[in-house]
Amino acid sequence: MKRVVTVTPNPAIDLSYQVAGITPGASHRVAAPLSRAGGKGLNVARVAHQLGHPVLALAPSGGAVGAEFAAELRSSGVPHRLVPVAAETRRSIALVDTVGGETSIFNEQGSPLQPSEWQALAAAVVEALDGQGAGVLVGSGSLPPGAPADFYPALVRLAHDAGIPAVVDTSGPGIIAAARAGADLLKPNNHELLEATGEGSLEAAARQLIALGAKTVLVSAGAEGMLAFHHEAPGGYWSARLPEPLRGNPTGAGDAGVAAAAVALASGVSDILTILRSATAWSAAAVLMPAAGEISPLYADLENQLILTWKETL
Amino acid sequence: MKRVVTVTPNPAIDLSYQVAGITPGASHRVAAPLSRAGGKGLNVARVAHQLGHPVLALAPSGGAVGAEFAAELRSSGVPHRLVPVAAETRRSIALVDTVGGETSIFNEQGSPLQPSEWQALAAAVVEALDGQGAGVLVGSGSLPPGAPADFYPALVRLAHDAGIPAVVDTSGPGIIAAARAGADLLKPNNHELLEATGEGSLEAAARQLIALGAKTVLVSAGAEGMLAFHHEAPGGYWSARLPEPLRGNPTGAGDAGVAAAAVALASGVSDILTILRSATAWSAAAVLMPAAGEISPLYADLENQLILTWKETL
Repeated sequence: MKRVVTVTPNPAIDLSYQVAGITPGASHRVAAPLSRAGGKGLNVARVAHQLGHPVLALAPSGGAVGAEFAAELRSSGVPHRLVPVAAETRRSIALVDTVGGETSIFNEQGSPLQPSEWQALAAAVVEALDGQGAGVLVGSGSLPPGAPADFYPALVRLAHDAGIPAVVDTSGPGIIAAARAGADLLKPNNHELLEATGEGSLEAAARQLIALGAKTVLVSAGAEGMLAFHHEAPGGYWSARLPEPLRGNPTGAGDAGVAAAAVALASGVSDILTILRSATAWSAAAVLMPAAGEISPLYADLENQLILTWKETL
Repeated sequence: MKRVVTVTPNPAIDLSYQVAGITPGASHRVAAPLSRAGGKGLNVARVAHQLGHPVLALAPSGGAVGAEFAAELRSSGVPHRLVPVAAETRRSIALVDTVGGETSIFNEQGSPLQPSEWQALAAAVVEALDGQGAGVLVGSGSLPPGAPADFYPALVRLAHDAGIPAVVDTSGPGIIAAARAGADLLKPNNHELLEATGEGSLEAAARQLIALGAKTVLVSAGAEGMLAFHHEAPGGYWSARLPEPLRGNPTGAGDAGVAAAAVALASGVSDILTILRSATAWSAAAVLMPAAGEISPLYADLENQLILTWKETL
């Protein structure tokens, strides 16, 4: 099977703390956090790797936090290549209130890369796509401040030049730019999709992206499951959901869905219903796990429980 | 002038985030934190160093977070010697709510050191006290889990073997143990003092420590200023406070007071009133600064404003 190559331009070390009750203004004693090299593309690579698929995760990494990021990634066993940069890798801090049940997240926004560092990251992508090993290219997550506006469209072009499909999962203007570049699959969530397109309905928004050039738009909608729009099926869309929503940790659920879609595309599967089923099941299986970047082995059972609906809209 | 040698057995990298309003359960975007090699003994060394006094800060440091800690400490210019250990250095996370005005702190408790690592830390202390350079030994802060119960008493003995005074600023049973070992100065805050001694009044509690063997007990009491008890003045105590309490960041204020006391002792000053005055002023000057380990240049003005009171109690 061919490799899933992921690119994470703004990775983070994810620090997850369990806190027995959070009191604003107080001092809290906490155990050492679960520390993990994170960022959406890393989560995609971890999930595909967990299920035995060949992967390569690409990301910039810098400073002392970057060294911590690199050390965790090495110990994870996920094949990767880090591009050294001057800027410190960012952190994302999750405070899991084990009494109140809520998780509060504090995401550092990331630091700008130098132009030569963006070139080095692009060169790492070109090298990863060289030869016959790569089956799909996935670009995931936010961009650090000062990133080239065409970063995601450029990834789509590099994938197509190498003859493989491109998946992009980002928010904001990057979604529109990736659609214009002809991305094979976009995976916004419902909020990101409406915000990026300015449309009032998910269907109008997904159709806008397809009109711009995207082939497939997979929309994650939390407990509502997922919707799938395809450029060759203009008359409606598929949706998939579980009979009952699952309780758990939704962080990284969308990334698990992207992992499923990427594994399908890397295996030569392009059938939209097959992709929607596995993406919805893997995404639900991620909710059952305490950390992003892992899915429960129940994913196959969950796939069998899915309720699939075709909604005719023309 | 002789060096202030500080020992911080459970140091931390302090990460301080500014958050524009904290909503429990939500995701927050934050800028990169102020990152600083912290722990109470580091704060003491930083303040003394800031005011031009020679210092040497000793601490264990380990793992990727320890590398981050070491890098920040190098760039700070504070003379130090780090003892490499296997355990990861801990973090302390401060979330400063710039809307609500409150600061919430999350302190990792630290990881156990190996017996050979405790020996290496003690050996580093012995080496730092060798020769004529050291003027005072300061042991500050919490102990990591599994620390030898006699860590602080052993520091006091090492100082006395070297012919220099010992200052200890910790909480819990370590205060009692340091008093029994004959510490020259203890600097608990009011809460720590009552908790460690089980007494109902600050005076009874301080007198208990002096009866056990402590020479001087300096008690920090927040906006109330500081109280000073001395073994040669059993009939009462001195207190010092500003006419009006200052608004600001009290984190590290106690450590600045310890820095003042340590600088005095290293300079051969043992007069209790002189120590109380400078400790109270430096502590107040720390409240005016955004981060622990720094004091405002207004410390001399603040010292001139102090209201000093002798309270006769016999």
